[in-house]
Amino acid sequence: FAFVVALRDFIDSVASSSPARLALIVFVLVIMLFTTLLSLPAAASNGQVTPFHDALFTAVSAVCVTGLTTVSTALHWTFFGQLVILIAIFVGGLGILTLASLMALMVSRRLGVRGKLIAQEAMNAGRLGEVGTLLKIVITTSVVVEIVLALVLVPRFMILGESFGKAVWHGVFYSISAFNNAGFTPHSDGLVPYEADPWILTPLMVGVFLGSLGFPVMMILLSQGFRIRKWNLHTKLTIQVSLILVLVGMVGFAAFEWNNSKSIGNLSDGDKLLHSIFASIMTRSGGFNLVDMQSLEPVSRVFTDALMFAGGGSASTAGGIKVTTLAVMFLAIAAEARGDADVKIYGRTIPQGTMRVAISVIIMGATFVLLATGALLIISNAPLDQVLFEVISAFATCGLSTGLSSQLPPAGVYVLTVLMFAGRVGTITLAAGLALRQRRQLFHYPEERPIIG
Amino acid sequence: FAFVVALRDFIDSVASSSPARLALIVFVLVIMLFTTLLSLPAAASNGQVTPFHDALFTAVSAVCVTGLTTVSTALHWTFFGQLVILIAIFVGGLGILTLASLMALMVSRRLGVRGKLIAQEAMNAGRLGEVGTLLKIVITTSVVVEIVLALVLVPRFMILGESFGKAVWHGVFYSISAFNNAGFTPHSDGLVPYEADPWILTPLMVGVFLGSLGFPVMMILLSQGFRIRKWNLHTKLTIQVSLILVLVGMVGFAAFEWNNSKSIGNLSDGDKLLHSIFASIMTRSGGFNLVDMQSLEPVSRVFTDALMFAGGGSASTAGGIKVTTLAVMFLAIAAEARGDADVKIYGRTIPQGTMRVAISVIIMGATFVLLATGALLIISNAPLDQVLFEVISAFATCGLSTGLSSQLPPAGVYVLTVLMFAGRVGTITLAAGLALRQRRQLFHYPEERPIIG
Ligand SMILES: [K+]
Ligand SMILES: [K+]
Repeated sequence: FAFVVALRDFIDSVASSSPARLALIVFVLVIMLFTTLLSLPAAASNGQVTPFHDALFTAVSAVCVTGLTTVSTALHWTFFGQLVILIAIFVGGLGILTLASLMALMVSRRLGVRGKLIAQEAMNAGRLGEVGTLLKIVITTSVVVEIVLALVLVPRFMILGESFGKAVWHGVFYSISAFNNAGFTPHSDGLVPYEADPWILTPLMVGVFLGSLGFPVMMILLSQGFRIRKWNLHTKLTIQVSLILVLVGMVGFAAFEWNNSKSIGNLSDGDKLLHSIFASIMTRSGGFNLVDMQSLEPVSRVFTDALMFAGGGSASTAGGIKVTTLAVMFLAIAAEARGDADVKIYGRTIPQGTMRVAISVIIMGATFVLLATGALLIISNAPLDQVLFEVISAFATCGLSTGLSSQLPPAGVYVLTVLMFAGRVGTITLAAGLALRQRRQLFHYPEERPIIG
Repeated sequence: FAFVVALRDFIDSVASSSPARLALIVFVLVIMLFTTLLSLPAAASNGQVTPFHDALFTAVSAVCVTGLTTVSTALHWTFFGQLVILIAIFVGGLGILTLASLMALMVSRRLGVRGKLIAQEAMNAGRLGEVGTLLKIVITTSVVVEIVLALVLVPRFMILGESFGKAVWHGVFYSISAFNNAGFTPHSDGLVPYEADPWILTPLMVGVFLGSLGFPVMMILLSQGFRIRKWNLHTKLTIQVSLILVLVGMVGFAAFEWNNSKSIGNLSDGDKLLHSIFASIMTRSGGFNLVDMQSLEPVSRVFTDALMFAGGGSASTAGGIKVTTLAVMFLAIAAEARGDADVKIYGRTIPQGTMRVAISVIIMGATFVLLATGALLIISNAPLDQVLFEVISAFATCGLSTGLSSQLPPAGVYVLTVLMFAGRVGTITLAAGLALRQRRQLFHYPEERPIIG
């Protein structure tokens, strides 16, 4: 009992001095737990203890909803192992700040204001009342969307000849993996057998896209529907930029790959289009793939790099620098080119402070990618093309892969592990959590601000 | 005579409405002139008209002080051709805004205030009086430094067995090429024969480094010497960051290449160090090389990419996003991580507006590099590693090369030509010069600002 009190006091004190640090600690504990579970002989189909770097990598990849793998999800892990991965995805998909508030809520009772603060920061939902209510909405939304997706998928798997039990398992796995932008597949050859099956691909695309918008946007959609005028700035920017990126990605992928017989060149025009829109949406950071990334044209991989780096919405299951960061950046540059003093959009001014956060997120992200690329070029013999793709996929928690992850020696595996962790936690939270001096909210402006990072 | 008046009126009107546009027009005219001269049969050693894309590329490479080549400078061009290149380097090294003020000064007499404004923008020298005085200082400084360098180099070439005439020609060529960060060499195998000759390499390094600091810094050094307290913020930042980059570049190059027998692995330790510091300084954007860039480790090329992208000082003969841009960026991120409202350094606050310029320069630069990389991946069959190196070298007007420029079809040559032009003009000036609406100086803050871009 004395231990519980001591723990409670410790959490209270960390939470009051630095919510970011509490979030970091909780996240590390969650990863340690899942690494331990995956290390159990019962988790591996060979009945052995999985090597530490593989267990850690898989746990981080699942909790950080990335989807990169060093061992085959379908072949290496038992049903128990896959269930652990699935639970890790669900928990990880809630996000680091949500997890921290959840922890605070469960362990401490004196945490009222601080816990609320963490949750508010996580959701950017200033007016929503209680922490409990907020978390309930997040979890309910996730579960409802996942159930709906599963209800669509299960019958299809049964029609395709799977037993009821197997179909339910696969339906649930894919729906959780899709909504959480995790990109894990329970089939050993992934989605390739369904590459022309819209009944399977459409729910996956819908799940990934919804998940990539983020909880703050989903809450506005739940309460306001499509009354666009009532949306806040963050929702408008997130949805607009996400749609633009999906469109650009689709056009680009189609243009670059249309006649590439190694990828989609030999398919019907309809299937080529389906492949293009699927490939584009998966860069939000879904991470499912229909064609081997190594068979794409080199320019498509660089194009995909850029889209993955952009990523999805803030406080979402997606990664990357986030679409609002991108939006703020381009608005600032446009204002600069026009000579405007203020950065304006939809009748709102974007505060200078927000731009500084945006630039920090972008430059710190680029620096992480550069350093990891250098490290992997030294560690592996892979060409820059392939290394950069895997590094950006890990940092943006996207999970698309040329297969490099499974070929790397342990040192390289650890580099990608750190990248996934940093990418999911967010460079800003990471910096704030590690900093000695405590960082509080910077913005005291009257303007409305989108979330960055 | 009516024509001269019309021309004068035209220049007056462009200069008053948009100095950036005047500068762009002047720069394009200069490039057209040198392209024409290089197209003359007298310029090519085969006595033929050089193909347009090669003549244009060489003219742009020389005027933009880049040093990339599609044809061998020593073998393809006659003495006349090489002289044209050398004059182009000297003219181009003055910089686009200096050229515009020079043009304004020569053609117009009614341009007083505007001409002064262009020159001030070019030099960031608010208190210096007359345009003429300013330009005189710039040109005098260039010529004096180049003469000193030549006086050191000529005797060495004579000792190495060259005739007096040849030694003078080579000495003058190398000194102009070095101070202007141009990277052109009059020897067919470049500097490789002198790879262990400090008497030749040192003046080249000094010339490149001085040139890369920029005229505003050199003027402060001329007037204040090393009384560091009297330096302005721009000078302090430029020199500090330049030195840090040289040091980091040297350590990195040495660390990555020390045991690479294809590059410096078989040299003595002293020569390895000399190679490392030379390679590092040349990324400022000198562009001379002692070893084949293709024989470096892949990680060294990516490392060099990053250093080239950073580039040299503002209003210098170097390219890249500029060291002060980098400094402002990192100071802003550090302030963000600490939670400081202001970005401070050396007892000064950096204005918010300056940060917006910095971010515009970086993101527009990265966008140019990304688009050109995509284009060259489609046009050529070269791997990403090689394409990215050539693209960044062109954009940062650095001139280091893996040899890709000379293997590209005309379409690829034009892509690099546009990159060198955009990189030298500067993305900000380019945007301002092309914009329909006129952009004026944005900063009305009382703080001191470093130059960006
Ligand atoms: K993912
Ligand atoms: K150069």
